[in-house]
Amino acid sequence: MSSSKHTEIAQAAVRLFEQKGYRATSVQDIADAVGLQKGSLYHYIHSKEDLLMQIAHQAISEFNRTLEKINHENISPQKKLAKMIENHLTISAVNREAITVLLRDAFALEETQHRTIIELTDKYTDLVTSILQEGQQKGEFSVKHPKISALAILGACNWLYRWYQTDGSLTVQQISQIFADLFLNGLLSN
Amino acid sequence: MSSSKHTEIAQAAVRLFEQKGYRATSVQDIADAVGLQKGSLYHYIHSKEDLLMQIAHQAISEFNRTLEKINHENISPQKKLAKMIENHLTISAVNREAITVLLRDAFALEETQHRTIIELTDKYTDLVTSILQEGQQKGEFSVKHPKISALAILGACNWLYRWYQTDGSLTVQQISQIFADLFLNGLLSN
Repeated sequence: MSSSKHTEIAQAAVRLFEQKGYRATSVQDIADAVGLQKGSLYHYIHSKEDLLMQIAHQAISEFNRTLEKINHENISPQKKLAKMIENHLTISAVNREAITVLLRDAFALEETQHRTIIELTDKYTDLVTSILQEGQQKGEFSVKHPKISALAILGACNWLYRWYQTDGSLTVQQISQIFADLFLNGLLSN
Repeated sequence: MSSSKHTEIAQAAVRLFEQKGYRATSVQDIADAVGLQKGSLYHYIHSKEDLLMQIAHQAISEFNRTLEKINHENISPQKKLAKMIENHLTISAVNREAITVLLRDAFALEETQHRTIIELTDKYTDLVTSILQEGQQKGEFSVKHPKISALAILGACNWLYRWYQTDGSLTVQQISQIFADLFLNGLLSN
């Protein structure tokens, strides 16, 4: 079995799931997209659901991996938060199709697999929360409820896949700076 | 045709769409849920898609209606924003099933209907943006890019349906205050 064929199948699946939705995409659609008979496709995959799990798992794992790295850096909490936002928005913009599938379609997984994705998502929320707690402990942040504030920041970042256009007037870096400024300084004039 | 039967069908549809997803719900599932034969159900509805459109349209229209009212009130931009957040989170918590269907499944609508939902969503984004612009003009807010900041605030509010639990330790009013404080004052200690 060729590893490049696996990659090709995964890429076709993420594109089809994003465009048509997971449920509306058939195994035949995926086979057609990579020029295989349906029977031959099953040499490479066990099921359509396994492809969904693979896409969702890779996407959420990448978020966790980059944030763990940032959390270990010897920089201030506000710099960590700004980096977290830029990384999150960059991953979302670069892998827009996979992130759409993760955020919209992962609920269609059977319960054990969905539970794994939820646990990894909770872990990510905890990592963001810990940045806010660190800022609070160091007196850098004034934050009444770190977990709820982390969920607000995450929601803002997760919404990007719904409106970001690569041909838009702003780069991901510019959007990240606007977000970081909003969350760090707030809207009120000083 | 009884109007209460229409309501019962719409309620069954929103519950089934939320639980199983729009695509995985059949017209037969909806008929079973309201104790009708599939043929009789078609006396009340034209198609499953019409039910999806009805749910999505009602949900986004309620967001727009409440925000238009707030925008016309004679209160400060920061009070408007705090009210917008509380209204958005309250609607999302009370109609969690309908909001889930709106945010997750509306993309499955055919193009013209989906376009209508997108236009109403854009209108809501514009209404939030106009609060930030008003705050900027009155010198109350310092905001570099009102539209991007509005999208950040909206994303934070829209994410609620993924984590809010009616049996959680915080009320919607408390969460709204934490959100408003975050967006108005930011995380940084003064």
